[in-house]
Amino acid sequence: MTSIFSRIIRGEMPAERLFETEHELAFLDRHPKAPGHTLVVPKLEVAAFDALPPERAASLAATLQTVARGVTRAMGTGHYNLVLNNGERAGQVVFHVHFHIIPRYEGDPFLERGSSRSLPEVAAGIRAALRALPQSERVPGRVPED
Amino acid sequence: MTSIFSRIIRGEMPAERLFETEHELAFLDRHPKAPGHTLVVPKLEVAAFDALPPERAASLAATLQTVARGVTRAMGTGHYNLVLNNGERAGQVVFHVHFHIIPRYEGDPFLERGSSRSLPEVAAGIRAALRALPQSERVPGRVPED
Repeated sequence: MTSIFSRIIRGEMPAERLFETEHELAFLDRHPKAPGHTLVVPKLEVAAFDALPPERAASLAATLQTVARGVTRAMGTGHYNLVLNNGERAGQVVFHVHFHIIPRYEGDPFLERGSSRSLPEVAAGIRAALRALPQSERVPGRVPED
Repeated sequence: MTSIFSRIIRGEMPAERLFETEHELAFLDRHPKAPGHTLVVPKLEVAAFDALPPERAASLAATLQTVARGVTRAMGTGHYNLVLNNGERAGQVVFHVHFHIIPRYEGDPFLERGSSRSLPEVAAGIRAALRALPQSERVPGRVPED
């Protein structure tokens, strides 16, 4: 079973791609819980977090840091939740490991604030922030063109 | 400022310790949102996830996998949420990076189910499950005595 995320990774489905490493891809969540809501996904398609090879869990976390920096600088907030839902009772819907980065804003009613900006506009801002990160603050990877 | 977690790491405050590596400590949350609610904390005291050195973020993720296996086997559920709250607007209360592992159960009303078992009892079960993990399923580390 090919997950929707594997299809995005292969370029068979559109997404606002933000950052790509050898082993991970970051892109905007299509149904954002807050502006800048981003997913970071290992290219290896496994359903369960603990089924990832440990070196892939490790590189996922380092990539999460880079992407979190880009998201928070672009969105103007250093406050965010990282969330991974493992298993349907935990709310997992796509059975391909993914971390959510959900930026939090002053006075936000969590998970109820919609974005007043379009996804392409939000994505362009995050990609610009990722491009501006000094080498010391990012793992090796590439930021797609706008 | 020494965090409450640094004091637990140094053994200056009690906690139900579950697993320890060179760089991380896992212990039960004192106010569990669900039975088996566990925290995994880097020994390095920094407030923000993206302020961790990338190699510490990486080892944190690999340790999370090991601890998640122990928790889910002991608690009888492979369903769990991983949550990290970064910044006060995201609900961070202790300003020392930590991941929550929150097991999820059939029919649980999330975050409302209390534990009918005591923390020491829950902890002993998780430690036993961690000890029983084959080497291939755990990062190097030690499980404290009961």
